[in-house]
Amino acid sequence: MIMKYAIVGTGAIGGLYGAMLANAGEEVHFLLNSDYAIVKEEGLHVISEVFSNIHLDKVNAYQHAADMPVCDVILVCLKTTSNESVLPSLVQPLLHDGSVIILIQNGLGVEADVAAQFPGTGVAGATALISVNKVGPGQMHHLDYGDLEIGNFNIEDAGMIDRVVAAFDRTGLIAKKAEDLNTLRWRKLVWNITFNGMCVVLNTTADKLLADRATYNLSKEIMHEVILGANACGALLPEAMVYDMLQFTIAMRPYAPSMKLDYDAGRPMELRYIYENPVAMAKAAGYYMSKVDMLLQQLLFLSKY
Amino acid sequence: MIMKYAIVGTGAIGGLYGAMLANAGEEVHFLLNSDYAIVKEEGLHVISEVFSNIHLDKVNAYQHAADMPVCDVILVCLKTTSNESVLPSLVQPLLHDGSVIILIQNGLGVEADVAAQFPGTGVAGATALISVNKVGPGQMHHLDYGDLEIGNFNIEDAGMIDRVVAAFDRTGLIAKKAEDLNTLRWRKLVWNITFNGMCVVLNTTADKLLADRATYNLSKEIMHEVILGANACGALLPEAMVYDMLQFTIAMRPYAPSMKLDYDAGRPMELRYIYENPVAMAKAAGYYMSKVDMLLQQLLFLSKY
Repeated sequence: MIMKYAIVGTGAIGGLYGAMLANAGEEVHFLLNSDYAIVKEEGLHVISEVFSNIHLDKVNAYQHAADMPVCDVILVCLKTTSNESVLPSLVQPLLHDGSVIILIQNGLGVEADVAAQFPGTGVAGATALISVNKVGPGQMHHLDYGDLEIGNFNIEDAGMIDRVVAAFDRTGLIAKKAEDLNTLRWRKLVWNITFNGMCVVLNTTADKLLADRATYNLSKEIMHEVILGANACGALLPEAMVYDMLQFTIAMRPYAPSMKLDYDAGRPMELRYIYENPVAMAKAAGYYMSKVDMLLQQLLFLSKY
Repeated sequence: MIMKYAIVGTGAIGGLYGAMLANAGEEVHFLLNSDYAIVKEEGLHVISEVFSNIHLDKVNAYQHAADMPVCDVILVCLKTTSNESVLPSLVQPLLHDGSVIILIQNGLGVEADVAAQFPGTGVAGATALISVNKVGPGQMHHLDYGDLEIGNFNIEDAGMIDRVVAAFDRTGLIAKKAEDLNTLRWRKLVWNITFNGMCVVLNTTADKLLADRATYNLSKEIMHEVILGANACGALLPEAMVYDMLQFTIAMRPYAPSMKLDYDAGRPMELRYIYENPVAMAKAAGYYMSKVDMLLQQLLFLSKY
């Protein structure tokens, strides 16, 4: 079965994954905003430090969702901060009876909120382990990694995620179906909660945090709290992953977390799904993430100044 | 008995208290550093929003401790960050057999360290509830409050602190002998730990922290932690003081905490006595101040950048 893909939000993540799918022969339709005219004219470009570079000359680019065909797989690659306000108008025109929505987004609880916006449409969540920056309109610089993991929330068609995983596999990326969405989400949060917020509050980068003894220890303690929070919520993450993730972060090329880029650019931070929901859900399950809550409160303060 | 006072460190605090003692007729000798020449020439000036202004024309001003007479009461008004390196050379020349050292400084454990530097000399600690800025050489602007409370550490002469309290009383200030130094120190830390560090990390002022719902709650939680830490260390502070102190801080004229001034000026922050000792002592007594420790770790990181 040939599937049609829609990329809702052709930024760094959406641009890269969409370009890789299209390059591997899938039918991909890109929704763009400010970059529409340039991408229509000049196509999409990926400079990759990991794979071959990609240049897509002819792109199915659209400025308005109403102009797009209905698609089988809607890949939402926007920041969660705009889910509430823009998803209904951007996604509704793309849906047919069998469409599924896959949220390549960060945080906890986002699938439930989106599923409530689109009753009857199956939703899944995906985490992307990737370092990619948009360096110009339609121009992505892919620095490192690329793995994609997809976890089902309420898609009824049992083979759907397998077919999407297979399509991503054909691009050369490592793609995987997660056994449990809750565990997938919490695992990614161990990194995101720790380094996104700390980089904003201390105006720094993850490598500098780990080069200092005090913040190395604090990072470890925050990761530890998130794992206990995850465990309370039924996501059985092992303690040992703290050390794996520290090693991984030390080995990473210096890379500003997305929340730091958002804060520096004056854009809203993804506090609701990355901090507020995890703190509230862990608390409701009986574990109070004290330092994570402090980080959230500091970020809430900074978001107003 | 007429007593001789030495002011070691004639900054905002030392300048104000020394000028008030001298103005009330006490014999006060001031040790100065960079302000020496101007104060010798032009005297000390206090512009007070609370009391009458003071102008001391003739000041016993010294640039070197070796030139000063021995004194009965040595009031140390330096930042604790210089205790280790400079107190021996600045205080030793001022001591006779009956001298006492009173530390008008912030933090926990400072008396024990200073007593170890001066075996055989009695030491006490004092907390100053005061808003005062040095606005020029020998020029103090006294904005609010002024209360001084003195707690004994190891002074053997039982009447000594009473006599110092009486001398301060005659200046018009409210002075008091504390029943328990440990409780006095912890009580002051409830404010200092909360607002000093938060103003540095979030680059703001106490009034702005309390005007925001997230940091208002965080401030309350940190105060609560300090009270539990104090209680673990035998300083029985009541929970209700959180609300008194919040009200007090909201009513205060906006005032940058000293640690914020130090950080902005590139001076070392008083982390050892205000954060490291309290965290370690509470932990040793069985209570871990999780958020205070996080604040300390953030401050340690910032102190290096």
